[in-house]
Amino acid sequence: MSVVHRLTLGDVLGEHRRGRPLGTAVVDGDVRLTWPELDARVNRVAGALAADGVTAGGRVLWLGQNSFRVLELLLACSRLGAIFCPANWRQSADELAHVLTDLAPAVVVWEESEAVEKARGQVALDARWVRSGGDAGPGGRAEYEAWAAAGDPIDPDAEVSADSPVLALYTAAFDGRPSAALLSDAALIAHSMSLLHIRQMEDGFTYLACGPLFHVGTMMFTLAAFQLGGTVVFTPAYEPTEVCRLIERERVTQAFLFGPMIDGLVEANRDRAFDLSSLRFVSHSPEWDDMITVDDSPWCASKMGGYGQTEVGGMLTFLGLGMGGRGPAGRPSPLAQVRILDASGAEVPPGEVGEICARGHSVFSGYWNRPELNAAKTAGGWHHTGDLGRREPDGTITFIGPKLRMIKSANENIYPAEVERALKTHPAVADAAVIGVPDDRFGQSPKAIVVPRDGAAATAEELIEHVRGQIASYKKPRHVEFADEIPKKGFTPDYDLLDERYGGGGYPGA
Amino acid sequence: MSVVHRLTLGDVLGEHRRGRPLGTAVVDGDVRLTWPELDARVNRVAGALAADGVTAGGRVLWLGQNSFRVLELLLACSRLGAIFCPANWRQSADELAHVLTDLAPAVVVWEESEAVEKARGQVALDARWVRSGGDAGPGGRAEYEAWAAAGDPIDPDAEVSADSPVLALYTAAFDGRPSAALLSDAALIAHSMSLLHIRQMEDGFTYLACGPLFHVGTMMFTLAAFQLGGTVVFTPAYEPTEVCRLIERERVTQAFLFGPMIDGLVEANRDRAFDLSSLRFVSHSPEWDDMITVDDSPWCASKMGGYGQTEVGGMLTFLGLGMGGRGPAGRPSPLAQVRILDASGAEVPPGEVGEICARGHSVFSGYWNRPELNAAKTAGGWHHTGDLGRREPDGTITFIGPKLRMIKSANENIYPAEVERALKTHPAVADAAVIGVPDDRFGQSPKAIVVPRDGAAATAEELIEHVRGQIASYKKPRHVEFADEIPKKGFTPDYDLLDERYGGGGYPGA
Repeated sequence: MSVVHRLTLGDVLGEHRRGRPLGTAVVDGDVRLTWPELDARVNRVAGALAADGVTAGGRVLWLGQNSFRVLELLLACSRLGAIFCPANWRQSADELAHVLTDLAPAVVVWEESEAVEKARGQVALDARWVRSGGDAGPGGRAEYEAWAAAGDPIDPDAEVSADSPVLALYTAAFDGRPSAALLSDAALIAHSMSLLHIRQMEDGFTYLACGPLFHVGTMMFTLAAFQLGGTVVFTPAYEPTEVCRLIERERVTQAFLFGPMIDGLVEANRDRAFDLSSLRFVSHSPEWDDMITVDDSPWCASKMGGYGQTEVGGMLTFLGLGMGGRGPAGRPSPLAQVRILDASGAEVPPGEVGEICARGHSVFSGYWNRPELNAAKTAGGWHHTGDLGRREPDGTITFIGPKLRMIKSANENIYPAEVERALKTHPAVADAAVIGVPDDRFGQSPKAIVVPRDGAAATAEELIEHVRGQIASYKKPRHVEFADEIPKKGFTPDYDLLDERYGGGGYPGA
Repeated sequence: MSVVHRLTLGDVLGEHRRGRPLGTAVVDGDVRLTWPELDARVNRVAGALAADGVTAGGRVLWLGQNSFRVLELLLACSRLGAIFCPANWRQSADELAHVLTDLAPAVVVWEESEAVEKARGQVALDARWVRSGGDAGPGGRAEYEAWAAAGDPIDPDAEVSADSPVLALYTAAFDGRPSAALLSDAALIAHSMSLLHIRQMEDGFTYLACGPLFHVGTMMFTLAAFQLGGTVVFTPAYEPTEVCRLIERERVTQAFLFGPMIDGLVEANRDRAFDLSSLRFVSHSPEWDDMITVDDSPWCASKMGGYGQTEVGGMLTFLGLGMGGRGPAGRPSPLAQVRILDASGAEVPPGEVGEICARGHSVFSGYWNRPELNAAKTAGGWHHTGDLGRREPDGTITFIGPKLRMIKSANENIYPAEVERALKTHPAVADAAVIGVPDDRFGQSPKAIVVPRDGAAATAEELIEHVRGQIASYKKPRHVEFADEIPKKGFTPDYDLLDERYGGGGYPGA
């Protein structure tokens, strides 16, 4: 691609600096930056990163709550050709240590947290650590600001490729540990265009990032608002009253909200203390619809339906492009193709289930540091989502469920492989498999089948505690059963047989 | 770009075949094709083209009125990696002969025309000629249909690049003869995304191509409707009653229409014989607004304002992205950047006039067969539009006029269009043109040729003062001559003739 066709996130920022000199780019607490101000900061931050050894392809890790600095660092990385990763800072120390080791960032920007400090002590990593975060913390904002201010502004027009990765988001544990999905400037910009189109975003769009920015759901709308030259309002985390206050004060057009979060806002605004009418969003309940402006764009009218994953930048298909059709996932973004393929890579006919595979502008560039997995994911020149789907006779798409096993407990996704990996690190465990058993309260709950190591012993309680010490608590098994062997299909557990033997069931999509 | 990121026009067709098996792709007279039918035809047509020697990079020329075959041939060329050119068949035989010689197509699809036959006789071209066109003509449709039907369907998934040219549109004569602007699949798809966004096109969009398809204005919306999986209705040319009939019958959402064409429809539908309410379009007159549904998308609300040219796939900027701003051209598409550059390639500050330059996804791939011109057009890695513009202090863009000429006075660059624009704001000026005359002291100095408005009068001194009040003093004319008319070449002054008549000369680089 010739340079006259180039468009990076940094280029978009450069255009907004010129095209919206008076426009507000970001709002975050008492911080409020115009596009020229954000542009100037980004050049300094890029200079600071470069001084700390971040070069093209280098990694920068963010471990903290939502902040305008997440966008600022991403844009600085875009101008350097580097990779920015906002990670879940609430993970366990072991999980954080995995991220630090796996990504090997040259710079870590972090907010005070015991787990982060513990993880830092566990790994041998030659990185610059810059403390950011809440006003309260010692060092806190001041340290990041001093570091950024000392940066020597870079040339914003330096040569970089729009096709190299700029954003890394840790996601599903396909082989038992989280992998960082890499998205290029081109992929993120393409995805934003799809959202601009489907959400019919217009001049003046203001997005409130009140979901976690390390998750593609919040990130994708943050980037779409950025692409359009709208305003992004950052808040550290979802807090109903604060969200109401920000919607009113900033005349917010859209926010990261779904069911229970919306109920929270309705509750917080029961006395109508806040004017939420600027919000143009999905219909939810009579009280809610009365507080906001119900939006009729295909995105909101379809109640944000579709199919997506981090590896395609967010959404691959939109119900809004197949309203009235049979498949709840609708149809692909205009910048993507979907094929339903069987295990051999051949297309299955409409009505039959196969793997949802894709090509298109927003498809990711593979996982960081996973060459073998990447080769498998792009077999035959198609991105394999790892999810099962079906083309309906009318051409719309139905998402069936993950191709590997997934347990859904209290609306959280749990991948057996990840829990098994944690179990197997216990000295008393020779082998283990995890299935989902029906659970009245949570839908499903994880159950571990464990083969004890000869001569070693551990109680169910000890094993559950062990897992809880390694990965997020909701992933720990709620039941443990001991067995002499794990039946296998090839190298992987024979889940169907395990379900049959140990009471598995209730899987999503089943 | 990896194949998992690829998206060609042929790929989009393949997706629509799967995603909209029952949807109507094209309507043209008694022809009505679903997406699978169009897809099957395209594979046959591609096979027929291949059999006639069209390979990757080969050219296919269309000389005829609007037809669904224009889209069909374009898509077939996309699947072959070839280049399709729909040209103005109403040109003179000499002009057509230039196109034939310049493009050297392997296949020419043509409709009966004396000029085409004459041009065919003038050139030595080893091409396959396939007659298409009106039902009436001998051979007519039958010949094209027999030719297409004999094609051996190609593999629609064969490897092609989305970045190679697929569409050639002849445009402005920079060096005295028309040049074919080459647009890639990627550029056309990006441009379509901008239109989908700005026009808020939704499922079910139906476009009536009633303007010429060899012009980007009609082609760009044809392609946007295609991209979305909407329906394109073709009609040979604009005929008011037929257009009304088609809007009603096909429930057309949008058509290629502007001022005088709209007046023609209002006249043709004075007795309200046709229901035009499906049309969602710009407000124009009370009668018109009452017949249609006035659309409030940023495209229609801004009355289709913006700045564009064939070389950027259509539109580069949209008023709908800068409503209420000072610059009538608004702001760039989210997939483009604009810079206002001086003759040295340096950016000029807001408020000053320079050349509108661009980078972005929809920028063309250069002109066919014009290596030197192409090098000049992409100097410094920016596409030089050849048009003058200005960033207003609010960041919006004003289009000034074509940069046909530049005058160099005391080492300052002066663009005639800017001075003419300033002159024409004076109430006593009906028309004006500015040339450069040799000047011993300054090299050149600007001279204005002014056509006074009937009944108004202003002295040369008054006009010079008026210009000085509007733009930088060095740009003001040093000489003013009054005349009865400004000779024109199309819409622009005939500067060569003006130079001859009024003593112009000494231009830089001349």
